[in-house]
Amino acid sequence: MMNFIKAVRSAWEHKDTLLCVGLDPDLEKIPWHLREMDEPLLEFNKAIIDSTCDLVCAYKPQIAFYSASKAEKQLEATIDYIHTRYPDIPVILDSKRGDIASTASMYAKEAFERYHTDAVTVNPYMGGDTLDPFLKHKDKGIIILCRTSNPGAADIQDLESDGKKIYRIIARKASEEWNYNGNVLLVVGATYPRELKEIRSITGDMPFLVPGIGAQGGDIEEAVRNGMDHDRAGMIINSSRSIIYASPERDFSAAARNAAMNLRNEINLYR
Amino acid sequence: MMNFIKAVRSAWEHKDTLLCVGLDPDLEKIPWHLREMDEPLLEFNKAIIDSTCDLVCAYKPQIAFYSASKAEKQLEATIDYIHTRYPDIPVILDSKRGDIASTASMYAKEAFERYHTDAVTVNPYMGGDTLDPFLKHKDKGIIILCRTSNPGAADIQDLESDGKKIYRIIARKASEEWNYNGNVLLVVGATYPRELKEIRSITGDMPFLVPGIGAQGGDIEEAVRNGMDHDRAGMIINSSRSIIYASPERDFSAAARNAAMNLRNEINLYR
Repeated sequence: MMNFIKAVRSAWEHKDTLLCVGLDPDLEKIPWHLREMDEPLLEFNKAIIDSTCDLVCAYKPQIAFYSASKAEKQLEATIDYIHTRYPDIPVILDSKRGDIASTASMYAKEAFERYHTDAVTVNPYMGGDTLDPFLKHKDKGIIILCRTSNPGAADIQDLESDGKKIYRIIARKASEEWNYNGNVLLVVGATYPRELKEIRSITGDMPFLVPGIGAQGGDIEEAVRNGMDHDRAGMIINSSRSIIYASPERDFSAAARNAAMNLRNEINLYR
Repeated sequence: MMNFIKAVRSAWEHKDTLLCVGLDPDLEKIPWHLREMDEPLLEFNKAIIDSTCDLVCAYKPQIAFYSASKAEKQLEATIDYIHTRYPDIPVILDSKRGDIASTASMYAKEAFERYHTDAVTVNPYMGGDTLDPFLKHKDKGIIILCRTSNPGAADIQDLESDGKKIYRIIARKASEEWNYNGNVLLVVGATYPRELKEIRSITGDMPFLVPGIGAQGGDIEEAVRNGMDHDRAGMIINSSRSIIYASPERDFSAAARNAAMNLRNEINLYR
């Protein structure tokens, strides 16, 4: 079985890319000629994957885009397609799960046994005991929300306790308590480069999943300079919409490739 | 369309019950004679529903138990069964979703358009803008995690900011900022009666979803006395395992009825 963090580090080094493409297909946004097909989301994903496979360190399907439209089978088939054709590329299930331990075990089963993904995003609000059922999967990447990329992230995450903001407390717990199997990563949004720098200083070389580039407006240079680890890597930088919807026409996969190439190169400029 | 909070208040009053049964069927725990059937989780649920329908103010399927085993169709059919046979009983999708707004819209679609549920549980860690795509559904119940029932709940929820614990801050935001459509409820665990009382004092008559009775060990008397609103109601008190697995044999639905009746009556003793 693939070890997620090793596979990502290997891609950073050997493929020279920090880019992750988010596979969040929306039937109302994909090209018209695909919408009539039996499995339109799968066909869309396959074309995006084939055209970007050499440019990414991971793929990240967001499960809501499949569950909202009864498309679980297309998600399964997408992941199977990646594993079969591109066995070196790890897959992150972006589901941000969090529940009491007995239920969290079921969510871990969803991610790792049903969908066979290599990593999963999880929400820490309910506390450490709710993360354990994920953390015990040593080879899987457990990606904990820390400082998210959205405008309202500050509402809870920036509250201060004993002079430390909640996201700093999460970062410290992630490093000191939750990483007992060496499989923890953090979500830190590109839209908040100052926080990226702070969290990097707390967590050493812990890898980050960094959303917020592209449609969400994060600045690439600022994010890379503030989030890099000692090897000038350390970040899985995700973009979804700015790549997969680069063109609404028949040339969508070529346009996605161009957008991915440009973003990969721009990221590398600042490393 | 049903208004969730009105439907629950009506059940509290006219059916004289605060009980909610959690429909969390696990193929490894349901009676043997059901496991060979085509749709074992659905058959199990139907029997539980038929035997407890007069004793509950709501049903609450936990989605992980279905998604872990590719049983989305059985979840759809369970909810459809409740709506068709027992149209007055509201259904809560327990999914604890939380994501950036564009993704949260997809999760709202999952809960309300795909599964046709009347309420959904959500996680507030990412902030107010991530709750809006749920909150805009005026007739649906949006049930926000506040103080959860698990042992590790204190890790984040009890951190103090400006002398106030995070769960108090969530309770205040829920009352003052997020309840603009009058459709907000809070999750407050029965296992922490002191916190139930505090949160009740902050939120007036806002309804609570109260897990933690039964397998999780919460004390019924303490929970009821501390969590009631001015009408001696205000709580949707959930139990899953202690009811649905009251017997592992062919008499499981009769045993579930007995367990539900006893719990409903014990709750009412203390109102």
